[in-house]
Amino acid sequence: VTPDELKARPELMERLEIVYGGLKPEELKQATGLRWLQVSSAGVNRWITDELRERDVLITNASGIHAQPITEHMFGMLLQVTRCLREANQQQEKGLWRGYDFNAHIDMLAGKTLGILGAGAIGAHAAKVGAAFEMTVIGLSRSGKPVPFIERMYTPETRLEFFSRCDVVMNVLPLTSKTRQFMGGRELASLPKGAIVINAGRGETIDSEALMESLTSGHLRAACLDVTDPEPLPEGHPLWEIPNAYITPHYSGGHPGYMKRANAIFLDNLNRYLNGEELRNVVDKTEGY
Amino acid sequence: VTPDELKARPELMERLEIVYGGLKPEELKQATGLRWLQVSSAGVNRWITDELRERDVLITNASGIHAQPITEHMFGMLLQVTRCLREANQQQEKGLWRGYDFNAHIDMLAGKTLGILGAGAIGAHAAKVGAAFEMTVIGLSRSGKPVPFIERMYTPETRLEFFSRCDVVMNVLPLTSKTRQFMGGRELASLPKGAIVINAGRGETIDSEALMESLTSGHLRAACLDVTDPEPLPEGHPLWEIPNAYITPHYSGGHPGYMKRANAIFLDNLNRYLNGEELRNVVDKTEGY
Repeated sequence: VTPDELKARPELMERLEIVYGGLKPEELKQATGLRWLQVSSAGVNRWITDELRERDVLITNASGIHAQPITEHMFGMLLQVTRCLREANQQQEKGLWRGYDFNAHIDMLAGKTLGILGAGAIGAHAAKVGAAFEMTVIGLSRSGKPVPFIERMYTPETRLEFFSRCDVVMNVLPLTSKTRQFMGGRELASLPKGAIVINAGRGETIDSEALMESLTSGHLRAACLDVTDPEPLPEGHPLWEIPNAYITPHYSGGHPGYMKRANAIFLDNLNRYLNGEELRNVVDKTEGY
Repeated sequence: VTPDELKARPELMERLEIVYGGLKPEELKQATGLRWLQVSSAGVNRWITDELRERDVLITNASGIHAQPITEHMFGMLLQVTRCLREANQQQEKGLWRGYDFNAHIDMLAGKTLGILGAGAIGAHAAKVGAAFEMTVIGLSRSGKPVPFIERMYTPETRLEFFSRCDVVMNVLPLTSKTRQFMGGRELASLPKGAIVINAGRGETIDSEALMESLTSGHLRAACLDVTDPEPLPEGHPLWEIPNAYITPHYSGGHPGYMKRANAIFLDNLNRYLNGEELRNVVDKTEGY
């Protein structure tokens, strides 16, 4: 059934066994027969309600299809800062060859240390690209298990040592009870002066007030944020006006063919489901990713 | 002697054996004892005059130190286009979360074909990064010799086949008699519709009129130009106003520590010179690079 059909005949809700997309909390209550929810995003924090956690419902996500676009987006935002491309655009608007002192502000990735916060599919791809740019790549994950192209893995316990080494942080953490506000004032202060923070995970994994303070004090060179807290960032929010904040409205995972690739995961899982096989991308409802 | 001392005592000019930097044509005439000119740039087209070509003067450049910054700059400009970062900046200026339809315009590098035009030190590094982004990398050079991370090399004779495969062209050609206007109307027309042209070589290697036409007709999605023809691009030049032209005023090779790295090449060469050994980075004055 399609969403429109469900609206017309709400009594069908209780007969749903499989949902591809999402269910609002009140719909979930009605969908008493639900066994499996496949979402088309990677982050599932929107969907994991207390009710879903307790019920015998499998949740699977589209993890994997975001690795390339989000990595490209993060490096694009990073290089926009280090190569002063925003300033170049402003100068181009004036039609002037000379003006801004680019040589005084440009920087080079090669030789710098890139810290990957959350080393899943996205983090692994970002690490590979960072290594190709000749950056030293370090990472942090819950388990601290080795990841290709990452020289050294840290764990939440050794996070201050991790942050103290990062010239650039790429945060791709999922939002869970353990990652909420993971980067607070102490963590931001541990970063070397001039560090660049990139967030393409979830806005709430960084303390927004502390982040704004690190930006305005000049401790951070820049923050490149595809996700914010609050999100959407409301009109008039002070973050909009901070000159070294670079904001993109949560589209880093987008790319042509997104739904085609998400559909392929669903269809593969549907095939497994019908054959009684184990599904791919099953989310741990307790851990939240 | 320093440039200031030379100004005060021009009679020293004829006693110069080694110059690190550059010499104007009239200075070159006076410097009758010159044996070796080390320049701090990679491109040497400014320095190779007819007189220098004929005289028994070695010319060496700083080739090698540009590979990382120019590669970073080219990927930064490219990702700025494919991730719509200029549009994101414009939207941020308005303080609005929603507005521009990013999903309709973003694109993904992974799966696309990257053509490297001129496969020296810069091209080789760009190929490595392109491969890490999961692009198919092809290349074109005079010799067509294999280069790591480049799947297939083309030569000037097969250039139209090369261009017909390129979703993205990264042009890092030096300026020589053979590369002047290398990309003309036919070559640009051979590119697939929607291709992106990046030039961080020399402006004169692309026919400027033909490029502007390909941009305004929409055949090209964008041109990212760190070099232009003419250069500097004068005030009022129509290229400034073309919306899908992205211009940076020839600083892609710049990076902190540039002169330190260029000096290291000079000092290494000076040591070789004094010991009668072969110099590094000797320019072929006939070929012009």
